[in-house]
Amino acid sequence: MDLEQRPEPRKKAAGLAARDASGHLSPITIDRRSTGDDDVAIKILYCGICHSDLHSIKNEWKSAVYPMIPGHEIAGVVTEVGKSVTKFKAGDRVGVGCMVNSCQSCESCNNGFENHCPGTIFTYNSVDKDGTVTYGGYSSMVVVHERLVVRFPLDRGAPLLCAGITVYSPMKYHGLNVPGKHVGVLGLGGLGHVAVKFAKAFGAKVTVISSSPGKEEEALGRLGADAFVASKNADEMRAATGTMDGIINTVSANIPIAPLLGLLKPNGKMILVGLPEKPIDIPPFALVLRNKTLAGSCVGGMADTQEMIDLAAKHGVAADIEVIGADYVNTAMERLARADVRYRFVIDIGNTLKDPAAAAAE
Amino acid sequence: MDLEQRPEPRKKAAGLAARDASGHLSPITIDRRSTGDDDVAIKILYCGICHSDLHSIKNEWKSAVYPMIPGHEIAGVVTEVGKSVTKFKAGDRVGVGCMVNSCQSCESCNNGFENHCPGTIFTYNSVDKDGTVTYGGYSSMVVVHERLVVRFPLDRGAPLLCAGITVYSPMKYHGLNVPGKHVGVLGLGGLGHVAVKFAKAFGAKVTVISSSPGKEEEALGRLGADAFVASKNADEMRAATGTMDGIINTVSANIPIAPLLGLLKPNGKMILVGLPEKPIDIPPFALVLRNKTLAGSCVGGMADTQEMIDLAAKHGVAADIEVIGADYVNTAMERLARADVRYRFVIDIGNTLKDPAAAAAE
Repeated sequence: MDLEQRPEPRKKAAGLAARDASGHLSPITIDRRSTGDDDVAIKILYCGICHSDLHSIKNEWKSAVYPMIPGHEIAGVVTEVGKSVTKFKAGDRVGVGCMVNSCQSCESCNNGFENHCPGTIFTYNSVDKDGTVTYGGYSSMVVVHERLVVRFPLDRGAPLLCAGITVYSPMKYHGLNVPGKHVGVLGLGGLGHVAVKFAKAFGAKVTVISSSPGKEEEALGRLGADAFVASKNADEMRAATGTMDGIINTVSANIPIAPLLGLLKPNGKMILVGLPEKPIDIPPFALVLRNKTLAGSCVGGMADTQEMIDLAAKHGVAADIEVIGADYVNTAMERLARADVRYRFVIDIGNTLKDPAAAAAE
Repeated sequence: MDLEQRPEPRKKAAGLAARDASGHLSPITIDRRSTGDDDVAIKILYCGICHSDLHSIKNEWKSAVYPMIPGHEIAGVVTEVGKSVTKFKAGDRVGVGCMVNSCQSCESCNNGFENHCPGTIFTYNSVDKDGTVTYGGYSSMVVVHERLVVRFPLDRGAPLLCAGITVYSPMKYHGLNVPGKHVGVLGLGGLGHVAVKFAKAFGAKVTVISSSPGKEEEALGRLGADAFVASKNADEMRAATGTMDGIINTVSANIPIAPLLGLLKPNGKMILVGLPEKPIDIPPFALVLRNKTLAGSCVGGMADTQEMIDLAAKHGVAADIEVIGADYVNTAMERLARADVRYRFVIDIGNTLKDPAAAAAE
């Protein structure tokens, strides 16, 4: 080891961390790496709360490393850039989603699917290139390779960085982003309500499918869907049979899939973006007889993410949010667990989570 | 009813029919309709035995109407055409596959997917437009609307009319018909061995995946596959992980799908063309994390069928067959039930099943 190559000074940042599988979040001070040549240092202003955050802090996916700072819907402002950075400068409004790095040289990366790179480094609870574990956006600042940063003029629109790209990408790659297509949106939560808005922005006819008949007014009224099907109403399901080009399935509970595949036209596609805990049962006839497709989709690449944001800005697509302070985050998690939010919490990090330097100066 | 409009005289034909769920086939004489304006009358020369025939005669799909004459891989010669027929004339070599009519006016028919028409009339055990039940190709002749007839110079290549289009169509629609793609073929039977040949004709790299290690020599040698993976060999499965653009799944047994999905690249597609009896269990993560697709595919439309035949003729793609006489058909069914055939039986109808007129004249 060359003793002259001293490690760069690291930067203190404030965060909210879970310490164990209770998932309780409490203040923490962490080190962030200093701004490398290709890095962008970002003062975080807003961070959305994704349902994955709740799964993660409670170790429901069995991969938790504590302390864990969740958050991968990050909106902020650039404070510093490395000397090789070309896309950003201090003062730019930017966003960071589910990934903070990738190998940048594999077939997936070269094709713009950083989300499929075997070397993807996720925004939190992932092992970074320096061997440390990544910390997410419930934090005062973050340092990210510029490739994984997007221009992001939407601040409180932070949920688009996960929920938005998660529903936008499959609509694009399965050909549902075309005027006149009939798109079903299964489940009306954080992902579903954004799917309705993007599908409308694409010019599709949008039908919300939900097991809660009470959501009809919300779907047709405030969200602007064209139709509503109560999935437990046999008459409504029968009337909608064979009418949809695609269904974005946002439901993460185990529900019978075959009747829902029946809503698709021949060659129709259902895309899973939720992650039910147990295997899904697929009767082969339900796929084979009319050439139907069940596909999975997980977030999206960086070029698609930027494209999604630009489209959202142009068409005024935004997640419906409830802005909260950092001290409300545990209550928000409890409410999220019982689906008591329309539709996404966003933490006002900039105004409520002081960074250690600022706190010391007060 | 106009009494002057007398029904056209019908024509006698010989057949081999199952009378009950034993599936035993025995001679029968049936009426075929006379040649309508749009019809083609066909003297049948060869008929392939598809595994569906076995399922059907034994009423395993619970929809059997007896007596049932199976057979939907029909090769023959035109004997007569109706006055509106434009595509065919007496003496033409033709083929008929799984369908003998469709509504010809719905969105699916207009888009060339007669196989998805809600009014599809299947070649046997289906209710025809005149209310009679259709009889298949284990018979001396058949009368079919010209739309559902294809030019077919291949005679003994009859299995292409079902097995061929069943594997050709999904390779086309899922983008696997491109040089350089890596196509897995799961299962090496009637469908699988034809899938290997078409994938090679498309210029793909082809890997046969089979639970029977003993099939390696056959796959690599006679069939010309590029590689072989024994699905029960963990090392071979690991080495093939993430390498395939698509897998044509021809297996109709219930096998664990998740490890096989692991063989696909990101955005890779597995297409089911077999019909396992029970639902398939799909762990959602296996589809979602790398945007994988599980799709079904059922035969194909008429334009695609003609395209497939023309490609097969050009590249010399043919099913490997064992030609049998009509009196061997019950033995053939027993052998088929225990997979004792490489890879398809074809009945030499022309030389071994006399039509009633010919029989009477002898």
